[in-house]
Amino acid sequence: MSARYHVIGNYLSPYVRKVLVVLETKGLGYTIDPIAPFVGDEEFTRLSPLRRIPVLIDGERVVNDSSVICQYLEERHPEVPLYPADIGDRAQARWLEEYADAYLGDVVIWGMFFQQGVKRFLFGEPTDEAVVRRAREEHLPRALDYLESLLPAEGFLFGAPSIADISIGSFFRNATYVRYQIDAQRWPRAAAFVERVFALPAFSRLATFEVSIMRTPLPEQRALLADLGAPLGEHPLRMGSPRRSMMRIE
Amino acid sequence: MSARYHVIGNYLSPYVRKVLVVLETKGLGYTIDPIAPFVGDEEFTRLSPLRRIPVLIDGERVVNDSSVICQYLEERHPEVPLYPADIGDRAQARWLEEYADAYLGDVVIWGMFFQQGVKRFLFGEPTDEAVVRRAREEHLPRALDYLESLLPAEGFLFGAPSIADISIGSFFRNATYVRYQIDAQRWPRAAAFVERVFALPAFSRLATFEVSIMRTPLPEQRALLADLGAPLGEHPLRMGSPRRSMMRIE
Repeated sequence: MSARYHVIGNYLSPYVRKVLVVLETKGLGYTIDPIAPFVGDEEFTRLSPLRRIPVLIDGERVVNDSSVICQYLEERHPEVPLYPADIGDRAQARWLEEYADAYLGDVVIWGMFFQQGVKRFLFGEPTDEAVVRRAREEHLPRALDYLESLLPAEGFLFGAPSIADISIGSFFRNATYVRYQIDAQRWPRAAAFVERVFALPAFSRLATFEVSIMRTPLPEQRALLADLGAPLGEHPLRMGSPRRSMMRIE
Repeated sequence: MSARYHVIGNYLSPYVRKVLVVLETKGLGYTIDPIAPFVGDEEFTRLSPLRRIPVLIDGERVVNDSSVICQYLEERHPEVPLYPADIGDRAQARWLEEYADAYLGDVVIWGMFFQQGVKRFLFGEPTDEAVVRRAREEHLPRALDYLESLLPAEGFLFGAPSIADISIGSFFRNATYVRYQIDAQRWPRAAAFVERVFALPAFSRLATFEVSIMRTPLPEQRALLADLGAPLGEHPLRMGSPRRSMMRIE
């Protein structure tokens, strides 16, 4: 069976991870083109006007923005629901997704993962220690205080795992990659919750790929991923003919 | 009939405008607490963890983020649908909403409206002309090129007006307030489209309030809005008792 969906993105992006977890949890076939983060050619700009990953390709349709993509997959495949059934809960789940995308994105990705990982190992530039300190000691604690007030002592936010749990977990996964561990004394609910999310089958399957490529030089990552059995594939619109404008999405 | 919904926000915010247009178009009763933009006390931070407007209050429920709020109102009141019925169109509408919120937000609000309006008239600070020039001459043209490739010659993006049209129009409304006019020679579809959105009843009703308060000193705005018949009201959670935690949303 050839995969219906194609993802352009990198395993180390929390926004990509959200989409991959949704695809995996719903049991949907996909391939991934694991382009390097923070780069992208002109063709990529045509597919992704804000030059963001992930991009989802479904036949001739191009879907941008991780939140829009997850909602799209939910509506196409409602069988394993990842959004709460109650309208109010659904709004709260979407809000927590936005909170993760915006605030945890700023703090964990730009304040920590980019500084301590990407900048150092990919770009060979020095870490800005003041930025990292504020992220770890001021901004992330603020988020953890907020989350601690919301998270359940057991299970997930809305019963079954939802987009809210996936989103929050996805950003904390990147935090672990720069050796951040939630202080379980100070935030017991958050610490235990994140571990529960990491234990979800989709999260642990993806972690294999994530950990393996982390300090592998870019040019060798694709071969490594292939050896590990990652569903690599070039997306079908790559050789787009001139008459097919990527900007005009059908 | 007392209004069910309460909005905390300012008439001049494009994110607030999106929500008000949705409320008005669906014919839903609401009051608004038109707090000053770019300020906010500690109680506001409890209601809005990212200190963003708008906030929607529905009984005991607090809903944050304009996109989440609009989707919430759609699900509670599907009678006048503002999201396309087709799943693919719906994804594209949500993406265009995100594009407007993110890119037009950066360019029109931070690059233009804040610089040429808020900073000057509210904070008495000088405009950064270089920022404004780049916004008007580089960044906004880039958005207009993209939109021109998508917008229809007539009518709206997906037939009836949708969240995509509302979002795009909402940001261009702020552009007009700093005297930006879309060049109809260069972007004929975009120029005509935005005029069609502005002509929607909800947009023109709201414009009365927006234009009136624009250069009215903050302390006089509330009285002016009351004279104009704006549905002012303090939200019902304002005097929240200590036992009611705003962070813990039911």
